[in-house]
Amino acid sequence: MTIETARGRVDELRSALEKAAPKHLDELRRLVEIPSVSAQGEGIEEAAKATAQLLSERGLRTEIRPTGGHPVVCAWGGAREGPTILFYEHYDVQPPEPLDEWNVPPFEVTEKDGKLFGRGTSDTKGHIMCRIAAIDAVREVFGADPIRYVFMIEGEEEIGSPNLEAFIHDNAEDFRADACLWEFGGVDNDGKPSLTLGLKGIQSIELRARGPAYDAHSSLGVAIDNPLWRLAAAVGSLRDTDGRVTIDGFYDDVRELTPGELDAIGAEPDRDEQLRREYGIDRFLGGAEGFGLRKRLRAEPCVNVNGFHGGYGGPGSKTVLPSRAMAKLDFRLVPDQKPERIVELLRSHLNRYGFDDIELIPLAGEAPGRTSLDDPFVGVVAETAKLAYGVEPTIEVSSAGTGPAGPFQDVLKVPFASVGCAYPGSRAHAPDEHIRLEDFATGKLHTALVIAALA
Amino acid sequence: MTIETARGRVDELRSALEKAAPKHLDELRRLVEIPSVSAQGEGIEEAAKATAQLLSERGLRTEIRPTGGHPVVCAWGGAREGPTILFYEHYDVQPPEPLDEWNVPPFEVTEKDGKLFGRGTSDTKGHIMCRIAAIDAVREVFGADPIRYVFMIEGEEEIGSPNLEAFIHDNAEDFRADACLWEFGGVDNDGKPSLTLGLKGIQSIELRARGPAYDAHSSLGVAIDNPLWRLAAAVGSLRDTDGRVTIDGFYDDVRELTPGELDAIGAEPDRDEQLRREYGIDRFLGGAEGFGLRKRLRAEPCVNVNGFHGGYGGPGSKTVLPSRAMAKLDFRLVPDQKPERIVELLRSHLNRYGFDDIELIPLAGEAPGRTSLDDPFVGVVAETAKLAYGVEPTIEVSSAGTGPAGPFQDVLKVPFASVGCAYPGSRAHAPDEHIRLEDFATGKLHTALVIAALA
Repeated sequence: MTIETARGRVDELRSALEKAAPKHLDELRRLVEIPSVSAQGEGIEEAAKATAQLLSERGLRTEIRPTGGHPVVCAWGGAREGPTILFYEHYDVQPPEPLDEWNVPPFEVTEKDGKLFGRGTSDTKGHIMCRIAAIDAVREVFGADPIRYVFMIEGEEEIGSPNLEAFIHDNAEDFRADACLWEFGGVDNDGKPSLTLGLKGIQSIELRARGPAYDAHSSLGVAIDNPLWRLAAAVGSLRDTDGRVTIDGFYDDVRELTPGELDAIGAEPDRDEQLRREYGIDRFLGGAEGFGLRKRLRAEPCVNVNGFHGGYGGPGSKTVLPSRAMAKLDFRLVPDQKPERIVELLRSHLNRYGFDDIELIPLAGEAPGRTSLDDPFVGVVAETAKLAYGVEPTIEVSSAGTGPAGPFQDVLKVPFASVGCAYPGSRAHAPDEHIRLEDFATGKLHTALVIAALA
Repeated sequence: MTIETARGRVDELRSALEKAAPKHLDELRRLVEIPSVSAQGEGIEEAAKATAQLLSERGLRTEIRPTGGHPVVCAWGGAREGPTILFYEHYDVQPPEPLDEWNVPPFEVTEKDGKLFGRGTSDTKGHIMCRIAAIDAVREVFGADPIRYVFMIEGEEEIGSPNLEAFIHDNAEDFRADACLWEFGGVDNDGKPSLTLGLKGIQSIELRARGPAYDAHSSLGVAIDNPLWRLAAAVGSLRDTDGRVTIDGFYDDVRELTPGELDAIGAEPDRDEQLRREYGIDRFLGGAEGFGLRKRLRAEPCVNVNGFHGGYGGPGSKTVLPSRAMAKLDFRLVPDQKPERIVELLRSHLNRYGFDDIELIPLAGEAPGRTSLDDPFVGVVAETAKLAYGVEPTIEVSSAGTGPAGPFQDVLKVPFASVGCAYPGSRAHAPDEHIRLEDFATGKLHTALVIAALA
């Protein structure tokens, strides 16, 4: 099969999906009703089993494989030969809190105003159902599986996928594939589908500075060093006022954008005004606007200070020289930066600036990944998006956000793209999370067309 | 009278003080039993009245003069002519908390092991009694008042004397004097009396930085500026790793130390090992040691960071770009720096570094003051210290701490020295505050000898 084959069967696939929609909605309910909150360790085993059950009901061979943390639901099936598609998803969800801001029960699917409400409908149990429903529809229309299917559905995405990289390293041979659909996606405010080809990496770090053994009177501050100053100066030294990171070697491994990637960034709509209004700001870092702003979001690394605490924080003044100070950082990384390398570079930077006494504690790290625009799979996903949505998709070279894309790029060496059933109002991670029925249907159809076109 | 007169009457003065000791202890009890905690606004009126009562019982004309805050107890009396001595004291005390760490009731005088325990015994109701007892003894021995006495006993010293400078400006004519005894003092660990001739000034300041209108996801940190970074960089820019303040013009008004002052600092005993052990530190700012360390403590200004807060402070990581950040600073000042000038210099510094968006909120300010070593009063206090204690006193060019010395130097233009009845273990501001009976007796005697020698 080819794009042409897929084009010829759009209506049949849509009909098959419409017919099966009640069944797939019912199956979505089964998943949403399990409160699989990874941060709280709840409902994990039950959700993994229910997810595996849906796949084995399709005749796929399923396994729930252990990791150092929550297990990964794995499944293999479809054609005995031919191309293989890998579906990366996750069965865990964000905590439902704050509960009193929900207008519906968080762990039920509530259908209202053409929308399906419930924790995980958008992020990302709805996407699991898009992939499963697509397989059903392809089988119905073509009478067979045109390609091989592999599922990797993890249970720790919402806590930073701490065990996925090791899992992929240890199980790489079982997840070889020609292409991968990623776990999120959807349409923008104009109904145009987005096709995201990359995710930034991250390295979170805690810094700790110590001063006198206990809080001292600040009259001694002329003689005894101040851990808040040391930490402030250290943090202040990490970037310039434009946001450019000033750590030696930080940009060395940044992959240059191709002319095609620059074009894709140029073709995206401006987000300037929307972001300005939403966050009440006058200007962006470095005075970035339009293309420059989008280039930052898609393809530039940065350092963030997530928190900084020490000493007195109450009203008025207190003449204290505090004993300790703490800051939390996250570095957002782009291909081909490596999280562990950033830890080394930061340590060297601190030492060079005279802050060798500042303790550096590496927290979570995820490597970045980005699929080449020239990969034929990108063309398949873009062409089928046009068939499903009736409009040209927006190509996002990368999300501004983070995900465990590194090992897919570096170990599995599989091209990936993120497409799905959400929209900007889906309220992922927030109360009243939902998807629109219309987007759910198109998301299923798009997945089915990708399968058909890959054959 | 002269030093020689004083020298001839030491034994008589000591006897008179011994005879009157029960009465003066009883009067100290009356003061300590009033919980005059200025920070909590408690017992203020009662303490002012009781203090004034002790003075009017000596035939002094007393007034309780209002200020913008707690009133000042004022008294005038003694000889109709001749030199005038001003006693600066305060009737307010620190809060007694934490209460469960006291081994005696905080607001009673408990006599135990040769010590007098109770809040204010050391800081500084014991010193009020030293001055009053000295007047009694001088009258007893000489049969008359050899000089004029003026008392200025404020009720806000423990909250930074926010109204004293204005009070002195408005009432300067009533407090003209030839010399002033300051409110604290005592002996060091070797029993050697300290004679402190100056106090540093202070300017406390709060800095506030703002970022996005509300906490944003830190994936946007590549495009939207981070208030924690801005504040850290701003604070980091204020000094270098040696503690030298990098604000343009900061040192312009620093008065040069005279050769005599340098000698006095040179003659002080080392505090290095004591400070190192007490605060568990390896080195002092700028690698200072011995003379250099003492010079910092006595005569160098600095900037302190008292607190720094913003964003996430819990366990692990949170990918947040915080909306706001706050830092509290205090600048310790030396003659002839002016607190209000420091505020202007800091504002210019922030603007020049691109931090004109950081809000600067001036908090409490006090001007520094320092009495010249060459002032004859210093000789009088030092010589009489030798008579009272039997050893040469240590001359401290200045305390490392802060007090409202500025207007005494600049408005009243009166030389001042701090001598008294405390010792390094007195636990001022802490639970189990106390003085030793022996130091109390010598503190009274020394004050009496100063009065005798001034005539």
